[in-house]
Amino acid sequence: MSTLTTDFEQPTMDDYPTRKDSTPALLYRRDPVVWGERDDGPIDQKSLDRYDDAGYLQFESLISADEVQVYRDELRRLSEEPQLRSDERVVVEPSLDEVRSVFEVHKISDVFADLVRDPRVVGRARQILGSDVYVHQSRVNYKPGFGGGDFFWHSDFETWHAEDGMPRMRAVSISIALTDNYVHNGALMIMPGSHRTFVSCTGQTPEDHYRESLRKQEIGTPDQSSLSILAEKHGIDVLTGAAGGATMFDSNCMHGSGGNITPFPRSNIFVVFNSVHNACTKPYAAPGRRPAFIAARDFTPVR
Amino acid sequence: MSTLTTDFEQPTMDDYPTRKDSTPALLYRRDPVVWGERDDGPIDQKSLDRYDDAGYLQFESLISADEVQVYRDELRRLSEEPQLRSDERVVVEPSLDEVRSVFEVHKISDVFADLVRDPRVVGRARQILGSDVYVHQSRVNYKPGFGGGDFFWHSDFETWHAEDGMPRMRAVSISIALTDNYVHNGALMIMPGSHRTFVSCTGQTPEDHYRESLRKQEIGTPDQSSLSILAEKHGIDVLTGAAGGATMFDSNCMHGSGGNITPFPRSNIFVVFNSVHNACTKPYAAPGRRPAFIAARDFTPVR
Repeated sequence: MSTLTTDFEQPTMDDYPTRKDSTPALLYRRDPVVWGERDDGPIDQKSLDRYDDAGYLQFESLISADEVQVYRDELRRLSEEPQLRSDERVVVEPSLDEVRSVFEVHKISDVFADLVRDPRVVGRARQILGSDVYVHQSRVNYKPGFGGGDFFWHSDFETWHAEDGMPRMRAVSISIALTDNYVHNGALMIMPGSHRTFVSCTGQTPEDHYRESLRKQEIGTPDQSSLSILAEKHGIDVLTGAAGGATMFDSNCMHGSGGNITPFPRSNIFVVFNSVHNACTKPYAAPGRRPAFIAARDFTPVR
Repeated sequence: MSTLTTDFEQPTMDDYPTRKDSTPALLYRRDPVVWGERDDGPIDQKSLDRYDDAGYLQFESLISADEVQVYRDELRRLSEEPQLRSDERVVVEPSLDEVRSVFEVHKISDVFADLVRDPRVVGRARQILGSDVYVHQSRVNYKPGFGGGDFFWHSDFETWHAEDGMPRMRAVSISIALTDNYVHNGALMIMPGSHRTFVSCTGQTPEDHYRESLRKQEIGTPDQSSLSILAEKHGIDVLTGAAGGATMFDSNCMHGSGGNITPFPRSNIFVVFNSVHNACTKPYAAPGRRPAFIAARDFTPVR
């Protein structure tokens, strides 16, 4: 006679399984997109609804032209800081000896720290996520023209879930443009509405995958069939706008960017806010965590 | 006492010197852009003026949806023809065993031959060039999505002058779209107005350069400083439009195309018409001619 019992360790249910199976799958999102209300911050109801629908929102001139100049100057200053050249958080293009990205820039620079806690920035993140937020990742990027590479389609959440242990879709990215984004110089492309579908990817995360994946991601890349379905259903938006503008997008937006053969470089500040109620745990599909400058383990709310 | 004499072989003056010097240069165009008149063909005066200004012109639905299907089917038929697989005019992507381009397609296929002599096509070319015209090059292209490469900035005339011996800027290209061109799937980019400046390039043309240059051109590539000047002055137009539409552009337009990470493939028919008064002679800056399927030596007018 068998007894029905729940007296055993319940396996953790994973709503967003990925990198565990040999076939890709399209799964429904199981989390809200907008967690806060109109009165929680500066975003109006219409814009909140649009974010809910499309998975992203653009703001013209979130910061002023003067501020753009301040952040450009600060990026230049950081690029020229000899001490930072050997810092693992600074990504240098070896052939040109030029700085491409500075990670954890809100800890390296007071100027960027102030920007992250600016109500125009963190206020919008808190409103969308309906809670206090902490910085999961921050960086400032500089990409020259004349042949900058593309970045293939991906969901950030897929990586953050698999490699960083982010449990749920309750994070938002903000990209603040320090240069003009045209349709022709490698602007961000988003499949609007794709944030409601989780593309479960195939493959297994190797050790220290982040060293490769920051350049060109292979594991955690959606399959062509899933991408075709999403692109047919949702289309593709190319997000243009002048320097000083900003884009906020959901952690599960299917996005990428084309290459850039134009003479016009691109530079932006990129901050990922995560809800304090969604702090990262153990990676869901990776042998180890990524370094803290890529995936924070300090969940102190931004104040 | 010296005598002034012209009794020696006058060196041939070259208005468009290129690949002869170690420094690049920006030179004025020394040819008209529109050689014909309003009454010479189907293009109205406003459009001729626009072509004169911008160096290109777009036509919505130059051919019907049914015709688009006919040409797609014909491309598929040619792709599957076993005999053509070993033909040097057929470019196959080895890793996928898929046909990417068929050159001299108006000689290989009656269907495309009829298109080239269609008054909607050749009539416009005759009008712009103000004379009878012959086909300098024809091809049909198929580029899949999901990572198709970019094509860097160049002037076709620079190559045709240097490598094919085309004397003057009196040729026009027409590209007829067999798929939709979006801003995001590697559409043609043109710097409008750049056709009035000849960018003299550095380097020397090696033997059999065309084998390389059809994939990725290095020699005959404009320098970054010249491109920056032209892009600042003229900006960059991205030429979108539905299947069936066409773009005609001047031989000296500075143009290129970005890569294509979208799922949407691109396919087009491309024909270069040259004036019969501008027939190619000896290459201006190359050790030998390119093969006739890339640069025709038969100057019989299209009838």
